[in-house]
Amino acid sequence: MSLQVGVIGSGECDKPLYDLAYEVGKYLAREKAILINGGLGGVMEASAKGAKEHGGVTVGILPYKDRWKANPYMDVVIATGMGHARNVIIVQSSDVLISVGGEFGTLSEIAIALKEGKKVISLSPPYSIRGLITVESPEAAVKFAVKYGRIK
Amino acid sequence: MSLQVGVIGSGECDKPLYDLAYEVGKYLAREKAILINGGLGGVMEASAKGAKEHGGVTVGILPYKDRWKANPYMDVVIATGMGHARNVIIVQSSDVLISVGGEFGTLSEIAIALKEGKKVISLSPPYSIRGLITVESPEAAVKFAVKYGRIK
Amino acid sequence: MSLQVGVIGSGECDKPLYDLAYEVGKYLAREKAILINGGLGGVMEASAKGAKEHGGVTVGILPYKDRWKANPYMDVVIATGMGHARNVIIVQSSDVLISVGGEFGTLSEIAIALKEGKKVISLSPPYSIRGLITVESPEAAVKFAVKYGRIK
Amino acid sequence: MSLQVGVIGSGECDKPLYDLAYEVGKYLAREKAILINGGLGGVMEASAKGAKEHGGVTVGILPYKDRWKANPYMDVVIATGMGHARNVIIVQSSDVLISVGGEFGTLSEIAIALKEGKKVISLSPPYSIRGLITVESPEAAVKFAVKYGRIK
Repeated sequence: MSLQVGVIGSGECDKPLYDLAYEVGKYLAREKAILINGGLGGVMEASAKGAKEHGGVTVGILPYKDRWKANPYMDVVIATGMGHARNVIIVQSSDVLISVGGEFGTLSEIAIALKEGKKVISLSPPYSIRGLITVESPEAAVKFAVKYGRIK
Repeated sequence: MSLQVGVIGSGECDKPLYDLAYEVGKYLAREKAILINGGLGGVMEASAKGAKEHGGVTVGILPYKDRWKANPYMDVVIATGMGHARNVIIVQSSDVLISVGGEFGTLSEIAIALKEGKKVISLSPPYSIRGLITVESPEAAVKFAVKYGRIK
Repeated sequence: MSLQVGVIGSGECDKPLYDLAYEVGKYLAREKAILINGGLGGVMEASAKGAKEHGGVTVGILPYKDRWKANPYMDVVIATGMGHARNVIIVQSSDVLISVGGEFGTLSEIAIALKEGKKVISLSPPYSIRGLITVESPEAAVKFAVKYGRIK
Repeated sequence: MSLQVGVIGSGECDKPLYDLAYEVGKYLAREKAILINGGLGGVMEASAKGAKEHGGVTVGILPYKDRWKANPYMDVVIATGMGHARNVIIVQSSDVLISVGGEFGTLSEIAIALKEGKKVISLSPPYSIRGLITVESPEAAVKFAVKYGRIK
């Protein structure tokens, strides 16, 4: 079973966060980890793009019921039709998560992940939550993700 | 349409939080607001008990698919069978929310509520989240809840 | 714990089905059963109207995340935001179900109910499904619902 | 975007149905369609096995929140934790569906698919539902699935 790593962050983001997320996707592809995210824009699009342009596999779990609303970098699209509840599915489907920036939606995912005892590696966290593992680079984030995700 | 107020907090709690939650339920009953919560123990049981013993109406939204797992103070039991995703339903079904203490599950609910633009009134918040309205007493919490919940 | 009876059927229906559903709501109110339905139009509105005009309690479980989209006869509104998946919640929250007419959405609810081992009493069923209990009148439907719902 | 084809059927099945489902998976792999199913045993396992042994890509959408409960032939595992509501996600994530045998769970999926206007190709259908397209062989099922799934 391949490692499934969730990458979470906002659907709209500035250039620096977009670039960070792209790099996260790139390094995940190099590790042959499957990238799980929400399938929309911003950090989701960037990380998927980074993965696809480096040979990775990407899975987008949409809040909508129509799967054509995903960004063009998702290999597999899951159309939940469940709005915010899809955040829970992203977390549960991931062995470990990497957050890139993030706002309230991301915070809800971090909270569920920590409740489930999953590790969350964080780049530029907007919140100070006990239990988050903060790192300085995409490369370090992926390194930790691979380490913690494979523990189980 | 009656006001629906969500009361969120942990399924296990100490006596001071239990008493706070009980008082929240009591004051909600006096305002004829419908109490929405997760239907289990701790803060959920306490707030429902406080409401029922003062003539209120209570609705428990369970993570399980079997409705007999609710605490005995719920008038209506919704059996989602959806685990953590039921948190999203609690938030969306509430016009305004009151948090009493709380851990990661509660944090996920606060995050979704704030993302949806709903007010969250907080007693003994364990987190410092921008946007939370912190109050000192159950009476004040309910007063604010009634005020903000009726705005829309 | 009060009996919770699900009433399922289409969101648009003709006058004869509307009248049947209204009568089902009326008899459920007389039995002090809580009426659970999908909170929208057609059979859902009719059954809730029948219940409310005879002193019953009604709960609408919406596919939408905004609870003001319910019909005006629902005492409690649950805003799932989960589209068709709310059908599953209706079934699980009901001790027994009554179907009035119905199309594909209703069929999905009947299937889940029968899978869960719940009784479905049926008025004017559009499908011939093994396991359905077909009756001739709203009064008989409610009588059977009360009988089967209280068994557990 | 690759074609995503849902294969639905019971979690336990006899040898003839297992073989049919295996063949469906094989032909889907040859068409380079992504196989979507529920990730468990019976028809789900058989179709995934047939796809994997012929170079296909498989996605299992589990009712559980723990992804290690999937059968060993799933490349990607989505852990919904939502019980029967995962059936809705399977349908929405599929461009077209193939049913192999099936009981009440499958019937709920067929109903949602037809409600959503999706084609369902059926091998050995246990129900006579208007709108189902019944075929005689796995090869024909996949041929129709590719034809109808690509229409949109």
